[in-house]
Amino acid sequence: MDGFTGRLTDQIRKDSPLVHCMTNYVTANDCANVLLACGASPIMADDEEEVREITSLCDALVLNLGTPSVKKLNAMLLAGKKAGEMGIPVIFDPVGAGASSFRRSGVKKLLEEVRFSIIKGNVSEIKALVSGFGAEKGVDASNQDKLDEKTNLESLIQLSQILWERTGSVVVMTGVNDLVVSGKSVWMVKNGHSMMGRITGSGCMLSALMGAYSSIAKGEMEKAALAALAAEGVCGQKAGQKAEKRQEGTGSFRVYFMDEISRMSGAELEKEKTIIRLR
Amino acid sequence: MDGFTGRLTDQIRKDSPLVHCMTNYVTANDCANVLLACGASPIMADDEEEVREITSLCDALVLNLGTPSVKKLNAMLLAGKKAGEMGIPVIFDPVGAGASSFRRSGVKKLLEEVRFSIIKGNVSEIKALVSGFGAEKGVDASNQDKLDEKTNLESLIQLSQILWERTGSVVVMTGVNDLVVSGKSVWMVKNGHSMMGRITGSGCMLSALMGAYSSIAKGEMEKAALAALAAEGVCGQKAGQKAEKRQEGTGSFRVYFMDEISRMSGAELEKEKTIIRLR
Amino acid sequence: MDGFTGRLTDQIRKDSPLVHCMTNYVTANDCANVLLACGASPIMADDEEEVREITSLCDALVLNLGTPSVKKLNAMLLAGKKAGEMGIPVIFDPVGAGASSFRRSGVKKLLEEVRFSIIKGNVSEIKALVSGFGAEKGVDASNQDKLDEKTNLESLIQLSQILWERTGSVVVMTGVNDLVVSGKSVWMVKNGHSMMGRITGSGCMLSALMGAYSSIAKGEMEKAALAALAAEGVCGQKAGQKAEKRQEGTGSFRVYFMDEISRMSGAELEKEKTIIRLR
Repeated sequence: MDGFTGRLTDQIRKDSPLVHCMTNYVTANDCANVLLACGASPIMADDEEEVREITSLCDALVLNLGTPSVKKLNAMLLAGKKAGEMGIPVIFDPVGAGASSFRRSGVKKLLEEVRFSIIKGNVSEIKALVSGFGAEKGVDASNQDKLDEKTNLESLIQLSQILWERTGSVVVMTGVNDLVVSGKSVWMVKNGHSMMGRITGSGCMLSALMGAYSSIAKGEMEKAALAALAAEGVCGQKAGQKAEKRQEGTGSFRVYFMDEISRMSGAELEKEKTIIRLR
Repeated sequence: MDGFTGRLTDQIRKDSPLVHCMTNYVTANDCANVLLACGASPIMADDEEEVREITSLCDALVLNLGTPSVKKLNAMLLAGKKAGEMGIPVIFDPVGAGASSFRRSGVKKLLEEVRFSIIKGNVSEIKALVSGFGAEKGVDASNQDKLDEKTNLESLIQLSQILWERTGSVVVMTGVNDLVVSGKSVWMVKNGHSMMGRITGSGCMLSALMGAYSSIAKGEMEKAALAALAAEGVCGQKAGQKAEKRQEGTGSFRVYFMDEISRMSGAELEKEKTIIRLR
Repeated sequence: MDGFTGRLTDQIRKDSPLVHCMTNYVTANDCANVLLACGASPIMADDEEEVREITSLCDALVLNLGTPSVKKLNAMLLAGKKAGEMGIPVIFDPVGAGASSFRRSGVKKLLEEVRFSIIKGNVSEIKALVSGFGAEKGVDASNQDKLDEKTNLESLIQLSQILWERTGSVVVMTGVNDLVVSGKSVWMVKNGHSMMGRITGSGCMLSALMGAYSSIAKGEMEKAALAALAAEGVCGQKAGQKAEKRQEGTGSFRVYFMDEISRMSGAELEKEKTIIRLR
C-alpha cells in the first residue's frame, strides 16, 4: 500500500470535512467529540423537515440505527437518497440490526433505497443484514458470534462477501480483529484493545470516523474503512495501555482514547497500524 | 447477612445480563457506560414499535421518567407489561415525578399497570408518588425534603412503607444516607460522597445498576437494591476521596467513579459497604 | 465595573437557581453537568405537555436550537411565552441557525413570539438571525465568518447592534474573542482557549451558564452575559494550559474544564477575567 492511513489522517485535519451524523442519543456526544478530535466537523440533525438540506451542506453522511424511531428512519431514507444524488459517501452502522422486527424492516428499507459506501457491524449485525434475522443479544455481538480465526474466519469472510455482493458496499465486520471485505480483497486490522468493548460508543465512534475518512478518500472506500479502523484501533491500544499501566478503569480509558484521537498524527498511525491483506 | 453484595457483584461479571433501559437523553450515555463497567450489557430502545421485542430479549427493564414524552410513556407501559409477563425485574426511577401534571399522570398510569420490583427516588420523588403531588424543585430533592436522621427519619420510613404497601415494590429513598424499605425490614446504606450530588446521572446510574443487580438476584429484590446502593456508594466514596486529595473537581470525579465501578470486586465491596438494619 | 463577575459567581453557589434547559441530545449531559458544577440546578424537559409547568418552577429558561424538531420548537414557543409572563430571563442559543430553512423559520417564529434576554451565537449564527439566511457551515462558524480585530470588528459590532435593535436582547457574538453588544455599550471578553473549539458542547455549556448567571443578576443581562463568558473563558484557559503542559488532548481538556467550573471562586474569576469596554 501507499501510506494511505497516514495520508488520509493528515488530510482530515487540513480539510475539516463536515459530517452529517444521524445517530442515537446514547452516544451522539461521543460521535461529535471524536469527529472534532480527528479534525472533522460534526453536525447532528434527524428531523424530516431539514435532513435533506443538512446533508446537502455535508461531505459525508453517517446513518446509525441505535434508538430508532419511525420518524428518524424516514428521515434517514430522505438523507440517504440526497447523499446518493450528491455522490457523497454514506456509512451505515446497523446497531442491533436483528434485535427487533422494527429494526429488521428498517434495515431492509434502507438497504433497498440507499446506496451505502461502507457498512460496518459486529458479527451479529452483519448476520442479521444477510439473513434477515439474527440471534442478536442486544447491541453487542452474541458469544456464539465472535470471530475466531481458527474456527470461523472463512465462514465470516463468506458472509461479508455475500453482503458485499448484494449491496456493493465495502463490508466491515468488527471484533477482536476486524475484517474489511469487498469484491477485490479481504483485509484484517489487528489493532485495538479489549477495553474498547467495555465502553459504550466505540462502534458508533468508529462509524463516525469512517464518515470523516471516506469524505476525503476520493472514492477509495476500502482505504477509508481501513484507515478509520487503524486510527480507532491504534488510539484504543495506546489508551488501554496507559489505563492499565496506571491501574485505572474504563472512565479514564475513554478520556485517554479521545486524547489519542485528538493528538494522532499520520506518521504515527502509519508506524503503529497492523493491517494484513488476507487475499 | 450472607456476603450478598460481593456475591451479586461477581455474578454480574460472570453472567453479563442484558438490561433494557428506557431512559432520558441527558444521562443515557452514563447509564450505558455504568452497565458496561459493572459487567452487564445495556440496550437502549424506547419506540413503541419495538420495545416489547427488545424487553423480551432482556434480563431486566429500567424505566426512567427523565425527559418524558407521550410516546415514550406509552412505550414504557408496553415494555413494563411485557416484563411482567416474562417475570423479569422492573426498576422504576421516577425522575422529577412531581414536577408537572404530565409526569404525575404518567406515574399514576405506570403504577397502576406495571408491577415494579424496585422503586427508587429521592425524598421529593417518593413523596410525589405517595401524595400525588409534591413541592418538587426540579429533579433534585427540595431542601425541606432532605432526610435528617434526627428529625424526620421515622416519617420518611413511614412514607416509604406506604408506597411499599400500595405497590408491593421494594422502596429505595436516596439521600445522604439511603433507605431500603419493604414489608419485612428497613435498611440504611451509609456509603456515598457529597460529589455524587454535583454530577448529573448519579441517580440514573443507580437505577441502571439496580437493573443489573436485580436481574441476577433470583427474586431477592431487597438484596439487589442494597447491593447496588453499596456499589454506587463505595465507588462514589473512593472516587470522591481521590478527587479531593488531588484537589480536582467534578469532571475528574465522574471519571474516577466510572473507573471504580469498572474495577470493583465483590470482595472489596463486602469490605467497604456500610449497610445497617434499622428494623 | 464593580466586581460583578465574582459577585454573581458566588451568588449562584448560594442560591442554586433552577435552570430549565430545552436543548439538544448531543450536549444535554454537558449542559446539566456544567450547571451543577457552577452551583445551579438543571432540569431538562421539552415535551409540549409539560414545558409550561416546568418553566414555571424555574429561575431561567435556555432555548437551544440543536437537533430541532417540530414538536420541540412548538414546546419552545410555549415555554418562552411562559417565561415572558413570569419575567424570568430567557437565553437563546441559535445553534446552526442558518443551516436549513426549517431552522430559519423556527428562529423567525421564536424571535417574533419570545422576548430574549440574551442571544448568543457565533458569527455565522448571528448573521443568519440578522439576514434571514447564512453561508452556514454546520454548527461551527464558517471560515469567512471569523472575527478578525483588524479587518471586520466594526462590521461585526454593527451586525450585533442591528440584532439588538430588532430584539432588545443583549447580543453575544462568540469567537476567539467574544463581543457583548447592547444599546448602551460594546464589550470584548478576551479569555478562552483554542481547545474550546475542539470539543462539542462548549457553546451549549456557555448558554447554559448564561441561564444560571442571568437568573441571579436582577435584570442586568449585560453583566450576566459578561460574567458567564469570563467564567467559561477563564476555566477554559486553565484547563487548556493544564492539558497542554501534560501533553494531553481534548478528552482530558473536557475533564479539566468541568473541574475548573466546579472549583471556580468569585475571587479567582475577578483576578483572571479580561473584559474590555470598547465603547
